[in-house]
Amino acid sequence: MTTVRPPSDPESDPRVKAVFDDIRTTRRTDFVNNLWRSLAFDPPLLERTWNDVKALMATPTALDPLVKEMLYVAVSIANGCSYCVHSHTAAARAKGMTDAQHAELLAIVSLAGRTNLLATGLQVPVDAAFDAAASG
Amino acid sequence: MTTVRPPSDPESDPRVKAVFDDIRTTRRTDFVNNLWRSLAFDPPLLERTWNDVKALMATPTALDPLVKEMLYVAVSIANGCSYCVHSHTAAARAKGMTDAQHAELLAIVSLAGRTNLLATGLQVPVDAAFDAAASG
Amino acid sequence: MTTVRPPSDPESDPRVKAVFDDIRTTRRTDFVNNLWRSLAFDPPLLERTWNDVKALMATPTALDPLVKEMLYVAVSIANGCSYCVHSHTAAARAKGMTDAQHAELLAIVSLAGRTNLLATGLQVPVDAAFDAAASG
Amino acid sequence: MTTVRPPSDPESDPRVKAVFDDIRTTRRTDFVNNLWRSLAFDPPLLERTWNDVKALMATPTALDPLVKEMLYVAVSIANGCSYCVHSHTAAARAKGMTDAQHAELLAIVSLAGRTNLLATGLQVPVDAAFDAAASG
Amino acid sequence: MTTVRPPSDPESDPRVKAVFDDIRTTRRTDFVNNLWRSLAFDPPLLERTWNDVKALMATPTALDPLVKEMLYVAVSIANGCSYCVHSHTAAARAKGMTDAQHAELLAIVSLAGRTNLLATGLQVPVDAAFDAAASG
Amino acid sequence: MTTVRPPSDPESDPRVKAVFDDIRTTRRTDFVNNLWRSLAFDPPLLERTWNDVKALMATPTALDPLVKEMLYVAVSIANGCSYCVHSHTAAARAKGMTDAQHAELLAIVSLAGRTNLLATGLQVPVDAAFDAAASG
Repeated sequence: MTTVRPPSDPESDPRVKAVFDDIRTTRRTDFVNNLWRSLAFDPPLLERTWNDVKALMATPTALDPLVKEMLYVAVSIANGCSYCVHSHTAAARAKGMTDAQHAELLAIVSLAGRTNLLATGLQVPVDAAFDAAASG
Repeated sequence: MTTVRPPSDPESDPRVKAVFDDIRTTRRTDFVNNLWRSLAFDPPLLERTWNDVKALMATPTALDPLVKEMLYVAVSIANGCSYCVHSHTAAARAKGMTDAQHAELLAIVSLAGRTNLLATGLQVPVDAAFDAAASG
Repeated sequence: MTTVRPPSDPESDPRVKAVFDDIRTTRRTDFVNNLWRSLAFDPPLLERTWNDVKALMATPTALDPLVKEMLYVAVSIANGCSYCVHSHTAAARAKGMTDAQHAELLAIVSLAGRTNLLATGLQVPVDAAFDAAASG
Repeated sequence: MTTVRPPSDPESDPRVKAVFDDIRTTRRTDFVNNLWRSLAFDPPLLERTWNDVKALMATPTALDPLVKEMLYVAVSIANGCSYCVHSHTAAARAKGMTDAQHAELLAIVSLAGRTNLLATGLQVPVDAAFDAAASG
Repeated sequence: MTTVRPPSDPESDPRVKAVFDDIRTTRRTDFVNNLWRSLAFDPPLLERTWNDVKALMATPTALDPLVKEMLYVAVSIANGCSYCVHSHTAAARAKGMTDAQHAELLAIVSLAGRTNLLATGLQVPVDAAFDAAASG
Repeated sequence: MTTVRPPSDPESDPRVKAVFDDIRTTRRTDFVNNLWRSLAFDPPLLERTWNDVKALMATPTALDPLVKEMLYVAVSIANGCSYCVHSHTAAARAKGMTDAQHAELLAIVSLAGRTNLLATGLQVPVDAAFDAAASG
């Protein structure tokens, strides 16, 4: 089930085709996953979204590619996005994440979830030492 | 403001003192931050929480210490825990996170937040290719 | 799958029948969607929920009906309620939401999600200018 | 800071005065907390909100009053509502919640937060045995 | 669909078998639900998670077992964990939760969700009276 | 308190100055609010964020400017971003939102929050009628 009807022949729109081609080239695969197929209902939204994802996730930056993907998984779990947990866990595995690293990722995410709720439940006042604006 | 009254002399309780001493030794600092001071209202909860945090975050494991701290920050942001964002960002800086890495962390977290909401809004069906149980 | 067993013949209960009849009359349709069928396991909860939804969403108020429905979709996405995203997107379409408006709705929701996380990650202090209590 | 300017003399509006009087009578106190003072900017919203809270939280129902208040605290923590965590923790204490019960409440909330994220990260399929619709 | 491939014969690992045996003994059932089967991909994570759940949820503590389970359900709903809502609602029913109690649980959770958003939307300042640190 | 130290003289960086100038010109005000001052610690992140906000929120598009701002407020409330609730409520007021419209916005957001949690608690199956992919 979905809330938009993905176009039956999305690549008949040249803007969609250009994005799909770029996805295939950038990722070196023929596979275009459903997020992009759904977004094809609105080519400008598809373009902007892909450009942002490509610039950060498919381009060398300060952080290691696997670390970036694991951060993406962590946020997707915390936000409860089932699709994104699936797609980015698969991407992390494709980038070399081992079972041990996956288990540790889940352990950290769930530990953070636990202490986040403790701090919120206690309404712990922020220590002055943590204020970046005050540090010399 | 807080929802529990932290004990005025927490270390008069030997269980609290033992945890605080371990925090100071493990982290090589005299500073015991407010989360632990708040948790001191219930020594068993304090002990269990510290033991879990220590085992994962203050002990060598599969992932790099800075990566672990950045994952913790990412989850804390997504969960909207103000205290935890402050404390773990400070911890990540103490472990060497540069401004460029911090900016990239925030960029990934916010990009994930954006595509998480897109996927949820579109109710994108999960691609069969992402099913770990089906992979060979 | 569900966590309550919906009654097999819900309208045999006169309180349930009255609500279902009102839903059909108010919405000018024979279709009673699953949320109401699930809530039928507890007639008072069904009545209170429908009365609140009807008073705000099926009655002329200050805001335009389509705007109200789009606000409902936006919150449902942010809260990650799959059922509600489906039902209220369908309702918005029934009230005339075009593909272009839907795309823009998703663009705003996801942009807000992105800057929400940036502001939370940065722990930006609230500007004094935003305090409604202080404005003249 | 706040997003609405609470009326300086809210009880000059008879609808507001009636709600505030009912709060004081129902709770047997002169104290009207800030949530109601903020809501006074829109008397109908104030009335509907108070009526719902009163019917469920200040009236004998199936569940014990302290249990109801602890459930309220639990949800408020999970939703990250700082004001509500404060107000409902104070209400739970006023209804007799001990430090030990408070610690256990926080332990359960944070344990649930932890396994919630594990299940979401693993995308665990729901066991058929949990389907209420299928049970005999 | 899932993000980890559960081992086909999990109990061939003695650490997994020990946990599964303990689950069966503690719960007096042959049924080991999918969360534990998924976690079996990493025996240490399985052990730690089960030990924590057992210590709090399957051991007599300050709060009543049904109350604990209802708190767990409440948090799972607020966190949007579909699996956990199913598993803990089933557990609450197994511990005696009636339809009336279930309806009231849902009523409280959803009322809290409503006033949480009102307080956040209004950005209500916390009343000084709610500060536990200030109380005598 | 904040997690980054905003530059003391941000406009000495020409990229920051260009963005700040564009904010002032676009919004016809001298006021540059704290979100942008915080983001100035990383000029590329500042540029990308402002460009996205400007393209959607400060440019004529399919939806009415006030409706867009109200959608932004709705998501910010649901995401629990205190800063964003303040800044976008102020922006909505500047675009003409009345007290009555504000009250109705809060009423819809909180009603959605309530039924979102009910649907999640009940785990209501999505009606086939809501599937956009199936509609003719």
